[in-house]
Amino acid sequence: MFRFGVDYYPEHWPEERWTTDARLMQEAGFNTVRLAEFAWSKLEPQEGRFDFDWLDRAVDILSRRQIQVILGTPTASAPPWLLQRHAEIFRMRQDGQRVTYGNRRGTCPNSPLYRHYAGRIVAQMAAHFHKAPALIGWQIDNEFGERCYCPQCQQAFHAWLRSRYQTLDELNHKWGTVFWSQVYTDWDEIPLPLATGGSPNPSLALDYDRFMSDSYVDFQRCQVETIRSQCPGSQITHNFMGFSFDQVNYFDLARDLDLVSLNYYPRSQWNMQAEVDPSEFALALDTMRGLKHQNFWMMEQQAGPGGWEMISVQPRPGELRLWAYQAIAHGADGILFFRWRSCRYGAEQFWHGLLDHDGTAGRRYAEASQVGQELRALSGAIVSTVIRPKVAFLLSYDSRFAFQIQPNNPQFSYPAHFQQLYQAFYRQHAQVEIVSPDDDLNSYRLVVAPSLHLMDRETAKKLEEFVRQGGTLVVTQRSGVKDETNLVVDQRLPGYLRELMGAEVAEYDSLAPGMSNEIRFVLPGLELQASLNCGTLCDVLAPQAARTVAVYCRDYYAGKPAITENRYGEGRAIYVGTIGDAWFYQILTRWLLDSTGIEPLVFSADPDVEISERWQGERRILFILNFASGPRCVDLRRDCVRLIDGQLIPAGKIQIPPHEVLVLKEK
Amino acid sequence: MFRFGVDYYPEHWPEERWTTDARLMQEAGFNTVRLAEFAWSKLEPQEGRFDFDWLDRAVDILSRRQIQVILGTPTASAPPWLLQRHAEIFRMRQDGQRVTYGNRRGTCPNSPLYRHYAGRIVAQMAAHFHKAPALIGWQIDNEFGERCYCPQCQQAFHAWLRSRYQTLDELNHKWGTVFWSQVYTDWDEIPLPLATGGSPNPSLALDYDRFMSDSYVDFQRCQVETIRSQCPGSQITHNFMGFSFDQVNYFDLARDLDLVSLNYYPRSQWNMQAEVDPSEFALALDTMRGLKHQNFWMMEQQAGPGGWEMISVQPRPGELRLWAYQAIAHGADGILFFRWRSCRYGAEQFWHGLLDHDGTAGRRYAEASQVGQELRALSGAIVSTVIRPKVAFLLSYDSRFAFQIQPNNPQFSYPAHFQQLYQAFYRQHAQVEIVSPDDDLNSYRLVVAPSLHLMDRETAKKLEEFVRQGGTLVVTQRSGVKDETNLVVDQRLPGYLRELMGAEVAEYDSLAPGMSNEIRFVLPGLELQASLNCGTLCDVLAPQAARTVAVYCRDYYAGKPAITENRYGEGRAIYVGTIGDAWFYQILTRWLLDSTGIEPLVFSADPDVEISERWQGERRILFILNFASGPRCVDLRRDCVRLIDGQLIPAGKIQIPPHEVLVLKEK
Amino acid sequence: MFRFGVDYYPEHWPEERWTTDARLMQEAGFNTVRLAEFAWSKLEPQEGRFDFDWLDRAVDILSRRQIQVILGTPTASAPPWLLQRHAEIFRMRQDGQRVTYGNRRGTCPNSPLYRHYAGRIVAQMAAHFHKAPALIGWQIDNEFGERCYCPQCQQAFHAWLRSRYQTLDELNHKWGTVFWSQVYTDWDEIPLPLATGGSPNPSLALDYDRFMSDSYVDFQRCQVETIRSQCPGSQITHNFMGFSFDQVNYFDLARDLDLVSLNYYPRSQWNMQAEVDPSEFALALDTMRGLKHQNFWMMEQQAGPGGWEMISVQPRPGELRLWAYQAIAHGADGILFFRWRSCRYGAEQFWHGLLDHDGTAGRRYAEASQVGQELRALSGAIVSTVIRPKVAFLLSYDSRFAFQIQPNNPQFSYPAHFQQLYQAFYRQHAQVEIVSPDDDLNSYRLVVAPSLHLMDRETAKKLEEFVRQGGTLVVTQRSGVKDETNLVVDQRLPGYLRELMGAEVAEYDSLAPGMSNEIRFVLPGLELQASLNCGTLCDVLAPQAARTVAVYCRDYYAGKPAITENRYGEGRAIYVGTIGDAWFYQILTRWLLDSTGIEPLVFSADPDVEISERWQGERRILFILNFASGPRCVDLRRDCVRLIDGQLIPAGKIQIPPHEVLVLKEK
Repeated sequence: MFRFGVDYYPEHWPEERWTTDARLMQEAGFNTVRLAEFAWSKLEPQEGRFDFDWLDRAVDILSRRQIQVILGTPTASAPPWLLQRHAEIFRMRQDGQRVTYGNRRGTCPNSPLYRHYAGRIVAQMAAHFHKAPALIGWQIDNEFGERCYCPQCQQAFHAWLRSRYQTLDELNHKWGTVFWSQVYTDWDEIPLPLATGGSPNPSLALDYDRFMSDSYVDFQRCQVETIRSQCPGSQITHNFMGFSFDQVNYFDLARDLDLVSLNYYPRSQWNMQAEVDPSEFALALDTMRGLKHQNFWMMEQQAGPGGWEMISVQPRPGELRLWAYQAIAHGADGILFFRWRSCRYGAEQFWHGLLDHDGTAGRRYAEASQVGQELRALSGAIVSTVIRPKVAFLLSYDSRFAFQIQPNNPQFSYPAHFQQLYQAFYRQHAQVEIVSPDDDLNSYRLVVAPSLHLMDRETAKKLEEFVRQGGTLVVTQRSGVKDETNLVVDQRLPGYLRELMGAEVAEYDSLAPGMSNEIRFVLPGLELQASLNCGTLCDVLAPQAARTVAVYCRDYYAGKPAITENRYGEGRAIYVGTIGDAWFYQILTRWLLDSTGIEPLVFSADPDVEISERWQGERRILFILNFASGPRCVDLRRDCVRLIDGQLIPAGKIQIPPHEVLVLKEK
Repeated sequence: MFRFGVDYYPEHWPEERWTTDARLMQEAGFNTVRLAEFAWSKLEPQEGRFDFDWLDRAVDILSRRQIQVILGTPTASAPPWLLQRHAEIFRMRQDGQRVTYGNRRGTCPNSPLYRHYAGRIVAQMAAHFHKAPALIGWQIDNEFGERCYCPQCQQAFHAWLRSRYQTLDELNHKWGTVFWSQVYTDWDEIPLPLATGGSPNPSLALDYDRFMSDSYVDFQRCQVETIRSQCPGSQITHNFMGFSFDQVNYFDLARDLDLVSLNYYPRSQWNMQAEVDPSEFALALDTMRGLKHQNFWMMEQQAGPGGWEMISVQPRPGELRLWAYQAIAHGADGILFFRWRSCRYGAEQFWHGLLDHDGTAGRRYAEASQVGQELRALSGAIVSTVIRPKVAFLLSYDSRFAFQIQPNNPQFSYPAHFQQLYQAFYRQHAQVEIVSPDDDLNSYRLVVAPSLHLMDRETAKKLEEFVRQGGTLVVTQRSGVKDETNLVVDQRLPGYLRELMGAEVAEYDSLAPGMSNEIRFVLPGLELQASLNCGTLCDVLAPQAARTVAVYCRDYYAGKPAITENRYGEGRAIYVGTIGDAWFYQILTRWLLDSTGIEPLVFSADPDVEISERWQGERRILFILNFASGPRCVDLRRDCVRLIDGQLIPAGKIQIPPHEVLVLKEK
Repeated sequence: MFRFGVDYYPEHWPEERWTTDARLMQEAGFNTVRLAEFAWSKLEPQEGRFDFDWLDRAVDILSRRQIQVILGTPTASAPPWLLQRHAEIFRMRQDGQRVTYGNRRGTCPNSPLYRHYAGRIVAQMAAHFHKAPALIGWQIDNEFGERCYCPQCQQAFHAWLRSRYQTLDELNHKWGTVFWSQVYTDWDEIPLPLATGGSPNPSLALDYDRFMSDSYVDFQRCQVETIRSQCPGSQITHNFMGFSFDQVNYFDLARDLDLVSLNYYPRSQWNMQAEVDPSEFALALDTMRGLKHQNFWMMEQQAGPGGWEMISVQPRPGELRLWAYQAIAHGADGILFFRWRSCRYGAEQFWHGLLDHDGTAGRRYAEASQVGQELRALSGAIVSTVIRPKVAFLLSYDSRFAFQIQPNNPQFSYPAHFQQLYQAFYRQHAQVEIVSPDDDLNSYRLVVAPSLHLMDRETAKKLEEFVRQGGTLVVTQRSGVKDETNLVVDQRLPGYLRELMGAEVAEYDSLAPGMSNEIRFVLPGLELQASLNCGTLCDVLAPQAARTVAVYCRDYYAGKPAITENRYGEGRAIYVGTIGDAWFYQILTRWLLDSTGIEPLVFSADPDVEISERWQGERRILFILNFASGPRCVDLRRDCVRLIDGQLIPAGKIQIPPHEVLVLKEK
C-alpha cells in the first residue's frame, strides 16, 4: 500500500474543525497522517501529568475516514516547565555559548536529565498507543542533530575516547599530540574543539565529530528500543534531511531503524532562487535510499512556500506534483506533505501548508489531490518495485567531517564536489546509488569515490577487490591523503590506493581564487577535445603502471598527467586529479558510462528532463519528468504502456508537455 | 521667538575661554545654548557630592550675551564611580553579552539602581536651577534607546505581560504557544527573545519590543515629572533621532513631552556618500512634526563632519545653511548646531563643531552666522506659522517591529519601502504629515499606509470611516496580514481591510534576489504607459467590488491584478500589491494627487529643488531650496514677496542659484 | 660564517630516522638547525620532571654532521597538564571571551602563574645546555603576541598607568575624561577597551595598546636575562613577523635582543594569490634590519606551501631560491628554512617542509640544496657586508596603533599607505631603511614619514634639525594631528610641524567610497604632467612660506594646494596632502630622488627586477633578482665580477633569465 498523506497538528486548531479536516484529507486521497510531533506540552502539560485524550479523539476522527497514523515522539521540543528549570539541558554552541529557550532542537543529546524526561514521555506514549488499530508507525524525534560542546558532552567524549583508544599513550600517538606540546597526561585534560581554542588538532576534531554523531545515534536508540519492545509491529523511522545535512553519519543513524524517511524542501527561505535544480533533490533521494538500500518515505514533502522570518518563492503550478513523482521515481513508497494547514502561530507562520492560514483549500490542495487521484491508478504497479543502479557513489562521512575541519582550499567543498559529479551522471539519466565505504560493492559496475580523503587498509583492500573482479573505480583529487585518525599517511600519495591506481601524486597545487588551469584529454578516442577549464585543487600525477587519460595545459606542470587509468585485474582504476566544470564532467561521465557498457535508459532526451526507473520484477517502469516550462522530447527504446490509463506508447520519440509527468511500463 | 544657537560644553575648555566663546556666539546671532548634557561627572564628582558652581558661572557668562539656556539631564552617561561598581546597571545585548564600561548609553532603562541615581541627579539639578532666569527648557537624557535583554528586564517584562494578559491561559492562547510545545505554566518560564534562543515566537518577540519601548517611555516619564513639578514654566523635550531610529515608539515617547526636538546629520561616518538625498532629511523632519502635530526644534543640527573612528565627508559650502532652512521649511521653530567647537578629547574627536579643534572660527562658523543674520529678518514672519498637509503617511511602529522580526523577504525593508513612497511625494512637492494609526485622520484628503502589516478591528473601522467620508486610502503589499498579537489573521487577506478594499489576496509571491516581474497600468487614462519593473513581494489580487488599476505581466500570474481601486462611501481605497521602482511610484503618485485634487505648490520645478510651505494665517510662505550644484528653475503660481528684503517676485519662472534658498510669501 | 639551515622537530619522528635527516641536511649544505621550539611536553612531561636526554641525542647526531644548533624556548605552547588546570593563564580576547585550550599562543603575558612556569623551564634548559658546544644561540618563545584583555592585565595596566601619570588628576587631564563623564576617581575604575564597551576613549585605547606591547617586551626580558646569565656567549633572538604584524612595538621588542630574526611566508593560506608582490617581502626585510640597524637572520624561510586548514598555492619552481637571495640582499646573514619535513600531525599538517610527509626529498629540497651549494662560493664575500641606505621611512607604532583605533576613513590603512609609498621607492631600486621616530636620522638624505599622526615636541624638533642641516623630509596627509596622549592638538594643523612645513591644513576632506579627486603638478619641471587620481583623505593646504608643488583639480577646493615644499635651513620639507595611485607615487618618488641627488643603482632596469646592494667596505655587491617568468634586462653602470664563478660582467646591458639571480661585485 502506497502511503499518501500529510503531517497534521490538530492541537493547533479548534476541535470542531477536525472533522472538516479529516473529510478534506480523505477527498484528497490521503490514507496516512503523522501526528504528535512537537506536542509534548499537550501530552504532558505538567511534569508527570499525562493527557492522551485529545490525541485519542483526533486519531478516532481520522480513523473514521480510513486514515492511519504515524506518531512522532515529541522530544525535539520539550516544554518550558522542563527546559526553563534546567539550563544544563541546553546545547552549547562551538563558540562556548549555551543555547537559551525560545526555539526547538536546543537540547544536548548527552544530557542525562534530558534523556530521563524524553525516555519517560516516549514510554508513556508507547504504552498508551501500542494497541491503537490506526497506528502504523513511529517517527523518532525530528531532524537530528546539531553538535553540542557542553561539559556533559566533554565527559561523554572522554569515555568514548577511552573506549576507542584504551590508553592515553595510544591516543597521544594516534593523534600526534607531540606537535605543539599537546601530550595529554590525564583524560580530563582533553579539550573540546571550541572556537575559542583556535584551529584544533585535526585528529581530535574528527574524533569529536564522530563522537557527536554517535551521540545522536545512541540517543535515538534509546527511543527505538522502548517503542520496539512495546509496539513490535510498528515501523520505526526518523525524518532525515537528505544529502546536504552534514553533522551526523546518516548510515549509522539509519541502522537501528526499520525505515528511512526524508524531509525535503526545494523551495525555502534558505534556498531563494528562481529555478530549482532537480539534481539536488535527486541526490537527496538517492542518498536516502542508499542508507539502507531499500525504499523509503517522504515524511515532509513540500506543500507550499517554506519560511520562518522570510517567505520562500511560491512553488510554481505543477511543482508540488512534479516533486512528488520525483520522490517516487527515486524510491519513495510513501509521501506525506508538510503541513496540512499554514499555522497562524509561532516561528513557522510562513511555512505554508496545503491549506491557507484561514483554512481555505486552494491551488496547492488541488495539486496534491490530483496526485492522490492518480495514485489510485498507479500505486498497485509501483508499490514493492525497486531500483537497481549499476553506478554507486561512495559517501564517506569521515572524509566529509575531515574536510569540514580542513577544507584544503577555500573554494573547495566536499558536498559541492560530490553534487557536481552526481549532477553529471544525473544529466546522463544514469541511475545512481549512494553507498557507504562499508557497503558491499558487488552489485555495481562503476564506483565513483569523490575526494575519498580518509582511507584505511581494509577499505583499500575492498576497492582493490572490486576492481580486480572487473569493476571500474573512479577516485578524485585528494583521495587517500589521510589515515583513519586524520594523520597524513606516511607514504607517497594516494597512500593505500597507490598500487591500485598505478600512479603517484608527484605534487599538488592549491589554486588561489581567480587562478585556473586547463586540461586536455589525450586518450585515443577522446583526444580531439578542446582543452577544458580546471582548477582549485590540482594533483600532478606520475603514472607507474597507469596510462595517461588527460594532461594539464598550463603553468609549470603543463603536459603532466591530470587523469590516469590503470588496468588492474579484470577492471580498471581511474584517478581524476583536478576539478573541472560541467562540460568537463559531461565528457568524463559519458566516457565512463560508455566504456563500462552501461546503456542509457532512452535513446536520447532533451535537457531538463529526468528519466528514472523502478523495476517490477524484470519489467522496467520509467518515470519521465519534464521540469521545463516548455515541451520536451524523449526517444524511447521500447514500446511502453502508460500506467495511468493503460494506453500504448510505442518506441520512438514522444513529447512531454511542460511541468508534466509520464509513468510508463516497458512491454 | 525663533530659537537659534548651539550645543555647548564649557566643561571641555579652560574657563578663561568662555567669554570669547560667548562673544562669538552672540556675534553669530545665537540666542539659545544647550548645556550640561553628559556633565554628570562634573555635577556630581563623587557619590552624593554635587557641584553646580561651574555651571552657574557658564550660564552667567552666556546670560550677559543675552543667550538663554536649555539644560540636558546627564543621565545618558553616568560617571565611572557609579557604573564601575554596579555592573548590573549595564544593558545586556540580544546576544546575551553584558555591555561593559567605556562609551555612553550602556545602561538598562529598567535598572532600579540606575533609576535611583538618575532620579537624584535630576532632582538636584531641577532644585538648583528652577529659578535661573536664563533657563527656558530641559532636554531629558540623550537619544533613547537600545533594547536591553537583562534579567531585570525579564522580570519587568513578566510584570508587563501580567498586566496586559491577566492570565497565562490568555497569553498562551494569544501567542499560540501550543506551537512547538511552548505552553507556559508559570510567568517565570517566559524567556527573552535572545539571539541564543534562535528564531523566537513572533508574538513574544513583538511584545518584547513593545515592552522595551514602554520601558524608555517610563524611564523618561520619571524625569519629566520631577522637572515639571520643580520648573513648571520650562519646556521639556527629548532629542529624537528622526525616522530611521526604530527601537522606540516615538509617538509614545513624545506624548509626555512639551516639545519634540531632533538630532540629524545628513553627513556622518555611518552615511558616507558623495551626494545627500534631501528627501531623507525631509522625512525625518515630517516625522518629528507628526509626533505631536506641532512644530519642533532641531536640537542637533549638523555643524561639520560627523564621525567617531572615521571622519565623514566634509559638508560642502552652502550645505549647513541649506539644511538649516530645510529644517525650518518642515516646521522647526528652533535650531541649535551641534557642536560649538570640535572636541579635542574622547570618542567624538572627529564629530566636528562650528569651530575647529584649535578654536578657530572658519568657514563653518561663517555659514552659521549668515543664517543668524538672515533670521533676524525672517524670524518674525516665520515663528508661529504652521504646516497644513493634505497627505498623511501612516507610520506603525507595531508593523515596523513585526517586520524586524519577520521581514517576509530578505530584500524587503519596511523603512526603506516607506522612504521610497515618501520620496515619490516629496519629488512632487507634496506636503506630507507622518501620523500614527491612532491619530485622527479627518484633516487629510489622502492617507498612505505602507505595508500596514498589523491590523486590529478598531483601526480598520477608522480607515473605513475615513474613506466613507470621502478620503482616499492607499495601502501596499502585505497589509492586514497580522492581528494585534502578531498572529496571521483567520481570514482571507487583507483581513480586516478586505471589505474596504473590495479585493482579496489570492496568492502572494516572495521573489528571490534577481527575480522580478512587470506591471502594466490598465485604468483608462493610465493604460498607455509601458510596463514597469516590480518585485520583491507580489500580492496577486482577486477583485470583488474593486476595479483593476494595474496587472502583472509575467510569470504564472501574468494578467492578474496588481493594483485595485474600490469606491467605498464617498471615497476610495486603493491596494498596491507590489513594490516598484522610482518611475513606478512617480506615475502612481501623480495619479493619486491629481485624482484627489491636491494642487501642486508651483506650476513646475526642476528636479533637485525642494518646495515647502508654512502658513501664516491664510498666507502661504514658500521655501524654495536648490540642492543642485547648478541653477534651477521654478514656475511660481502667484506673485510673492521675498522675505529677506521685501522685494516683489512676480508669478512665473524664476531661477535659483546653486545651493541657494528663497523664502517667499505669497501676496 | 653565513648561517644556513632549517627548523627541525626531531621529536615528531622516530629516532631511527634522525641520522638520515642529519645526513640529508649536511648534503644540502646546512650548518645550523633550530630545535626545541614547542617541545615543552617532551622536555617537562610532567610538572617538575625534566627530560633533556632525547634533545641531547638529537644535538649529538647533528653535531656529528657539523651542524650547530639554536634552541627555542618552548613557552609559546605550554603542555595540557599546565594549561588545562589553570584557565586563568589563557588570554582574554577583546570581546571578553577567554581563549580555551586547543592551539598555541593562547597565554596571557601578564599571568604571574604562567611567568612562573615559563621561567622555570627556560632556567632548566639554560642550565642544562649552557655548555653544549654545538649551541650558538637561543630563540625566545615564538611570534609574540596577541593582545590580552583579562583581569590580570587590567591590574597590570593600572600599575602601568600609575607609573606613567603618577596621579589620577593628571591622567584625567591627559585623557580628557571630562568628555562623556568619564572622570575616574579611583585607578580601579579604569576599564579595558573591550568590544562590549563600544568605541573607547582614544587616549585610553592607545595607552592600552602601548601597555600590551610593553607586556610582551617585559615577558621576553625575563627569559633574556635568565639565558644571558647562564649562556653569556649565546646569540639571543626572537622570531619577528615582519612589517605587517601590528600589535607589538618591534623597536622596543628588539632592544633587549642580540639579533633580530624573521619568519616570512610569501605564500600561505592567508595570502592566496597567483603572483607574489616582491616589494612586500622587501619591506618586511628592511623593517627587520631597521629594528637594530644591523643585519639579521631569517628564522623561518618558506620551504613549501603554507597552510593550516587550507593549502597555499605551491611555490613555483625557483621561488624558494629567489626568496632566499632576496633575504640576503636585504641584510640576512642567516637563513633557516621552515620546516624540515611536512608534519603528519596536528594543526600544521599543511605547512609543508622541504621534505614531503613521507620523508621524500624532492623538488623543494633540491632547490634549497642549490642555494646551499652556491653559498659555499658566495658566503665569504657576503658575510659582514652591510647596507647603507640614503632613504629612511619613519615607522611609528604609536601612529599605527592610533589609526587602528581611529582609521579616519574606512578606506584608509596606515600599513597599506606605508607599503604603497615604500613600493614606489622599491620600484625605483632605491635602498630604504625603516627607522623609528626615536632613531638618529643623520646618515640619511631623504626621510619619508607616512601619515605621522602622533607628534610630540621632541620629535618635531628632531625633524626640524634634520631639515635644517640639509635633509629632505616628506610627510603625508594627517600628520601631526595628535599629541602623545592621542588628543587632537590645540593648534592649526599639522600642529608641531606647521612651521617646518611652512603651510597649514585649511580644511580636510574624507571621501566616501566611490568619490575621488584629481591632482596636477604645477612645479616648474613637473607641470606638464596630466592630472592624476587622488582621494580617500584630502588635506587642503594653505601655504605660508612654502611653495605649491601640486593642486587639486576638482570639487570646491579645486586649485587649492595638495602638495607643498618648504625650504628650511639647508634642506626642505614637503607635505603631501592626499593619497594617489601607483603612477602618482612614481612621479613623486622620481622627483624626490632626483632632487635629492640620490643616484640610481643602475642606468635602467626592466620592471619585475629587484636591484639591491650590500657594501663590502667601499665595494658594492649588487643583487639582481628577476621575479618575472620571462627574461629581463638591466643596464649596469660599472664593470662587475660575478661572484659565483668570478666571471667578468662588463658595464652595459645584460639579460637575466626568468626566476634567476645574479650576485655581482662592482670592480
